Amino acid sequence: MSALLLTTIDMIKPLDKGAMAEARSRQDMLTKPRGSLGVLEELSLKIAGIRRSPLPSLENKAIVVMAADHGVVAEGVSAYPQEVTRQMVANFLNGNAAINVLAHHTGVRLVFVDMGVVGGFEPHPSLLCKMIDFGTKDMTKGPAMSREQALDTLEAGISVVEAQIEQGLDIMGTGDMGIGNTTAASAIGAAITGLPAAELTGTGTGISEEQLSHKIELVERALEVNQPSSDDAIDILAKVGGFEIGGLSGAILAAAANHIPVVIDGFISGAAALIAVKLAPLVKDYLIAAHLSAERGHRAMLDYMGLEPLLNLKMRLGEGTGAALGISLAEASVKILKEMLTFDEAGVSDKDGEGV
Amino acid sequence: MSALLLTTIDMIKPLDKGAMAEARSRQDMLTKPRGSLGVLEELSLKIAGIRRSPLPSLENKAIVVMAADHGVVAEGVSAYPQEVTRQMVANFLNGNAAINVLAHHTGVRLVFVDMGVVGGFEPHPSLLCKMIDFGTKDMTKGPAMSREQALDTLEAGISVVEAQIEQGLDIMGTGDMGIGNTTAASAIGAAITGLPAAELTGTGTGISEEQLSHKIELVERALEVNQPSSDDAIDILAKVGGFEIGGLSGAILAAAANHIPVVIDGFISGAAALIAVKLAPLVKDYLIAAHLSAERGHRAMLDYMGLEPLLNLKMRLGEGTGAALGISLAEASVKILKEMLTFDEAGVSDKDGEGV
Repeated sequence: MSALLLTTIDMIKPLDKGAMAEARSRQDMLTKPRGSLGVLEELSLKIAGIRRSPLPSLENKAIVVMAADHGVVAEGVSAYPQEVTRQMVANFLNGNAAINVLAHHTGVRLVFVDMGVVGGFEPHPSLLCKMIDFGTKDMTKGPAMSREQALDTLEAGISVVEAQIEQGLDIMGTGDMGIGNTTAASAIGAAITGLPAAELTGTGTGISEEQLSHKIELVERALEVNQPSSDDAIDILAKVGGFEIGGLSGAILAAAANHIPVVIDGFISGAAALIAVKLAPLVKDYLIAAHLSAERGHRAMLDYMGLEPLLNLKMRLGEGTGAALGISLAEASVKILKEMLTFDEAGVSDKDGEGV
Repeated sequence: MSALLLTTIDMIKPLDKGAMAEARSRQDMLTKPRGSLGVLEELSLKIAGIRRSPLPSLENKAIVVMAADHGVVAEGVSAYPQEVTRQMVANFLNGNAAINVLAHHTGVRLVFVDMGVVGGFEPHPSLLCKMIDFGTKDMTKGPAMSREQALDTLEAGISVVEAQIEQGLDIMGTGDMGIGNTTAASAIGAAITGLPAAELTGTGTGISEEQLSHKIELVERALEVNQPSSDDAIDILAKVGGFEIGGLSGAILAAAANHIPVVIDGFISGAAALIAVKLAPLVKDYLIAAHLSAERGHRAMLDYMGLEPLLNLKMRLGEGTGAALGISLAEASVKILKEMLTFDEAGVSDKDGEGV
């Protein structure tokens, strides 16, 4: 591992229990029955622990959306042609995709990163180029990328987040685009959780049941051909991963290292989080699962990391669409903590006539 | 029934299937796999049907928060003293409660209505006075209110919404404040669904298991003493309801009559919706269940109306807090429909190479 990666991992510390206890104490004094805001209360405490502040604010919100292509599409794993990766990134840059709408709705800035899209892009002010190669190799025939490339994706992700921190970053979401990337994510999920490929593989953008059987076989073959070491996250990323997935793993590590909560999106982001957690187990305390994806296998990923999703809206789009909604809930939770008054401050009688 | 109530009920029509079909057709052409935004897609169609427009917008968003007191608190059903109703309304007017924070976060205007709070209020520019009486009577000893008063609450709710429509109203949420009102809501729920009181009665603001047994007995006694007719929603409202609950029922009827989607909050709003649906069964197509409350019995209410909640965050505060979050999701759903481009418009290849 490089010095950058080692330093980043080394910076990841346990949550600040003191800040969490202070936040709990304040939540309990706010003018509402204790615990009556349920998950939002717990979420505010977690963010207090991550931000190391009993009264965190989340003014600077960004979703890092990483895109890359996948050699495995040659095997016929997606309902869409490979060119859609490039076309959808152009659609993002023009502001017309689902993620643009939801990010605008929730006041989140978008950071688009080309991690290796076939065809590449002309320079664009809203697109960072961290291209590793024009797509991975076909993982059913050998490693998707070299170990060196896998390390490069992680470092690219770290550098993207470090630059974002300079612009102000209080909470980060993850998003992805890459035709074929549910196949890579399934292979990562199976390699890390140890569950059968069939339990981690779903219909992605909408393939038939017959195509699904084929996709499961391909995931099994990729694992069989490459034999990734279940204890070596970089080996797994290199052999059955993707450039955008590795980039997101690096971004997640960097966010955790810098006390920034990470709202993970769906299935692809889940795979990236698994890699990050495998590299640095403390990362999981920094993760907020935005939603349960409709993609089969997402629940198993979240269970492995001990995460409970905030939303269950049967979404399965990726791009960071779930993350945008999750960030809005996270922001709501800390606003409650910060902006509500306590029983004393508001002159309201507490439970059983206590307080005022 | 009065002419106003009859006219309002008569105005409630089935959803516009044509607008829904047009919205479905557009959803299927947007640059995402069909159905990949799950519940948000279905929600946008429902709103299109309610608004009678294939491309609805939800610029004017309001939550009507109604407050009143309950005579049954004399029996010891709440963890909080009755004065908290009045204090919390003052807290709302000062902008310091949970609903203020969440409404501000989601860009929703708040409409506070005094339907009958003990002690009353000085005139305040943000508070509408529709006071029926200083709290209901103790429903365990006789009817909570007269039939005339029940009709008055419904008409008050209708008039509040009609005034809001003049200010612009594209979507309405419901909210409540009233110490003791979960007891009334439980009795309404039991009377309408026919389920045992124990299945509709929960711990409200946080009473003990022992107090819960007492509360269940009180709900049973109220039903026993009053014998509300299960087919007569106004009889149920009068005998075991509350002024704010009836006000919300009227507001829901008026919204449906005017093609305005209604995002119902938690347990109290659920009881108000049950009354409205009983009076006009078509109302249920106009309802969006914001969340599943942690209060026991809420699921049974939603099941009776055939509603699936958008969120499940273990919230149980009322005030319209869940409705605020639900309105934000509803708004996101119609923005997706309106602001995303289609495959053709964006120059993105459709599934299996169709389209571009």
